[in-house]
This record gives sequence, structure tokens and C-alpha cells, in this order.
Amino acid sequence: MLIIGELINGMFKDIGKAINDRDKKVIQKIAQDQVASGAGMLDVNTGPYEKNPKDAMKWLVDTIQEVCEAPLVLDSTKADVIEEGLKIARKKAMINSTNSDDSRLDLLVPMAKKYKASLIGLTMGKTGIPRDKDERMEHAAKIVTKCQEAGFDLNELYLDPIVLPINVAQAQGTEVLESIKEFKLLCEPQPKTVVGLSNASQGTKNRPLINRIYLVMAIANGLSAAILDPLDKGLVDAAITAELILNKNIYCDSFLEAYRKK
Amino acid sequence: MLIIGELINGMFKDIGKAINDRDKKVIQKIAQDQVASGAGMLDVNTGPYEKNPKDAMKWLVDTIQEVCEAPLVLDSTKADVIEEGLKIARKKAMINSTNSDDSRLDLLVPMAKKYKASLIGLTMGKTGIPRDKDERMEHAAKIVTKCQEAGFDLNELYLDPIVLPINVAQAQGTEVLESIKEFKLLCEPQPKTVVGLSNASQGTKNRPLINRIYLVMAIANGLSAAILDPLDKGLVDAAITAELILNKNIYCDSFLEAYRKK
Repeated sequence: MLIIGELINGMFKDIGKAINDRDKKVIQKIAQDQVASGAGMLDVNTGPYEKNPKDAMKWLVDTIQEVCEAPLVLDSTKADVIEEGLKIARKKAMINSTNSDDSRLDLLVPMAKKYKASLIGLTMGKTGIPRDKDERMEHAAKIVTKCQEAGFDLNELYLDPIVLPINVAQAQGTEVLESIKEFKLLCEPQPKTVVGLSNASQGTKNRPLINRIYLVMAIANGLSAAILDPLDKGLVDAAITAELILNKNIYCDSFLEAYRKK
Repeated sequence: MLIIGELINGMFKDIGKAINDRDKKVIQKIAQDQVASGAGMLDVNTGPYEKNPKDAMKWLVDTIQEVCEAPLVLDSTKADVIEEGLKIARKKAMINSTNSDDSRLDLLVPMAKKYKASLIGLTMGKTGIPRDKDERMEHAAKIVTKCQEAGFDLNELYLDPIVLPINVAQAQGTEVLESIKEFKLLCEPQPKTVVGLSNASQGTKNRPLINRIYLVMAIANGLSAAILDPLDKGLVDAAITAELILNKNIYCDSFLEAYRKK
């Protein structure tokens, strides 16, 4: 499973400050730490309050690429901010994200194609958060159809079933887990799946445990990627072990260390 | 999910000694400790070297029932040893186990029916360990058919896909996990499923982690019951959290404590 490090996000106080101060060291350290902890890609989000998000995105991508080989996930609600990152990304990037709205799809699917980027498709639309698996499937089908029409490679599409906090939307857990399985039945080649994991435990008293168990259950259902905190060692250990049980890495007594060295 | 405590087994040195010495205190303490830690049933096995297993089973069942309300899982390769326990069990018991051999099925299915006990059916036969999911399904189908012919309630059947150590049979992990899902498609009412969890990590260097992740993945696939060490708090926490995510218990901030008090 692909681990996408979530920590370069202006929403976090220290990162927001570092972006504002254009403090390279803070950003470069958190980029390197995440990769050393098992992240295969790094999410890059300028944060909700950034006044010049295009400038900030450009600076963040340049800053990270100075010290780090990991490909980037360009994360913004604004398409032009995402494109600013795509223009200068050296490795194959990922767009985070479109949803099922035509206005988003018409902008971001061609953009993903143009820049040969992967694309995250949130299975929601203008009407807000999906209520159950069926609504998620409807949004997913719309996204898939648009990608097919545009000739966008479905192997590069990551459908996101929208993880909700377990303490306020407990019944959504099974809907999300079932969606991860069923999205793969939508088409050939199968679309991939991704979750924003930390949302599961938002507002709960035992965040690491809930994140860990939620992730393992999602992996058991075939999850392809997760946006998460790779510095939570127990969380990454759980993911590595789940993939070991699924026979995706060969067992050795030091399988946790072996994975991180890889 | 039903947690079956595995610790009353003569195979463990201290338990073997306590059985030999007829030392009630050791047995009663481990029985109570397991129930306090979340076990809903207690496995009772006199161990491989016991010379008078019928006497030992009778003594164990009496000794446990003196202090403990939990129903018992009578665990022996010998049908007459199991029956010795069934005769005096006060609560609805479980038989551990039959396999798919006619000689075992013809003895143990009627015995389960006679004593109104549940029955664990190992999905293996004389030919030994199943090699893949299909072989497991064949054994499962044979067990189900025999139960149907005998008029044994399929709700009381727990099919066991045979968990194997991840370090020597790594490819069997997915076969077991898939079997847990597919056993339920065999018939109506659906048979339940059970695993002997600790086997997954036998001989590995990180047993608690592997047990934990394996269990959560099995629960994600619909597992009904597991024989495990309930004194491993992290393991039981993982099971409780998995069921919380599946919406089987209502969320509250202290959901781990709330479950154990129940």
C-alpha cells in the first residue's frame, strides 16, 4: 500500500508558520522524516489561510524537491494552485483532488492527463457528504465515466470513499469499507482506492488506536493508498504487517526494518 | 466477535502442572482473569501428555464452574474426553473440534446435537492441512452437508479455516481471510467462523503485532469468533476497536472500558 505523508499542510501551526516565513529547514526536515518513516509520496497543501497559495505551492514544491526524491501529491481546492505544483514537479505527481461535479471533473481530468499525473476522485459532489455505499458508488461511477470519456488511464485514478469521524458518523465505517471493495468492480482496469485516514479518529480520545485499526481493516478490503501521519510508528508498523499477512512482502524476522530500508 | 480464552490448556507448563497436582487455585484464577479481560467462553484442554484425560477434563470443568459463569469450549482430539465435559457443563458448551472426516463427523455431530452444544469444524481431513481456499471450501461443504443431514442447526456451526504460521506458510494468509468470507456463502443460515489465532505468529519475533493485525483483518472479513490470549490487552483492544468501526458497539470516549464492563 502506498503511504502518502500528510504532514506538509499549512493547516498545522508549525507548517503554516514555516510557509509564511519561507523557512526551508522546517519543511525539508518534515519531508525527509516522512520519507524515512515509510512515506512513498508526500502530500503538499498550503493550508486554508494562505493568501498567495500559488506562490506558496511553488515555493513548497521547490523546497521539498531540493532535498527529497519522493513524488508529490498536490493538494488544494483550487485547480490553479494544483497546476502551479504540476508545472515544476520532477516526478510523476498526484492531484488531490476532484470530486464528481462536472465543473471539477472538466478541469482536473484533462489537467491530470496533460501532466501525466494520478488523480484522486472524492466520491462526493455538490450535495455534500455521501450517506451510504450506494451514494459513494454513484459518485464513483460518474468519475470513472468521465475519466473513460477523456481517455484517462483508470490505473491512475484513486477513488476516495470519504472517511468520516467514527464518533459522529459511526455507521459510515462499514459503508466506507464496503465501498473500497466495490469500487474495484466498477471497471477494468480497476480504479485504485485512497483514504484520508486521520479523519476517522477526529475528536476521539484514542486517535492512534482508531487510525491503526481502521487502516488495517481498509487494507484487508483492498485499499491501495492512504494519506496519514507516517511519523506514527505504530500506524506504519500496522500497515506493514497487514501487507505481510497479504503476502505482499516476504517474511523475515525483521520485516518492519526491512520494509523501511526498501 | 466472541473471544474464546485459550489459556486453560495443559500444553502450557504451569497449567499442565496445576492439572497434574489438581491445584484448583491456579485454574480458577486463570479462568477468572480471562473472563475479566473480555473472554466470552473459555477453552478447556487437558494437554497432550495427560494420562487420564477424562478425569482431568471432569476435574477442570468442575473446578472452573465453581467460580466462573462463562460457558466452556471442550477441546480434545478424543471424543470421549469431550463428552466427559459435556455431561457436566452447566452452560451451553462448544465442541472443539471435528474435522471433515466421516469418522469424526459421525461421532461429533450427533454428540453436539445430543448435548445442544455448538461445534467447531476444522476445514481439513485425513489428508492434512488444506493447501488453498478451494480445499478449505471442499472440507467446509462436507461438514455443512453432514450437519444438514443430521438436522444440526447451522447457526451453531463454527467453521475454522486453519490459520498457519505466517513465517512458514505466508501465502496461506489470504487463503484463510478469503475463506472466512466465502464460508458464509455456503448455506443458509450462514455458518459462523472461528480461528485459532496464536498459530499465525508461531515462531515469529513479533507475536503480539502479528496476532493483532491478523485478527483485525479477519474481523474485517466477518470473523465470528477467535481462540486467543485475552490477557494480551492490546489484542483485545484491537478486537473491540474493529467491532466499533463495524458499528457493533456504540461509540463513547471510553469504549474500551465500556466493552469490558459489559
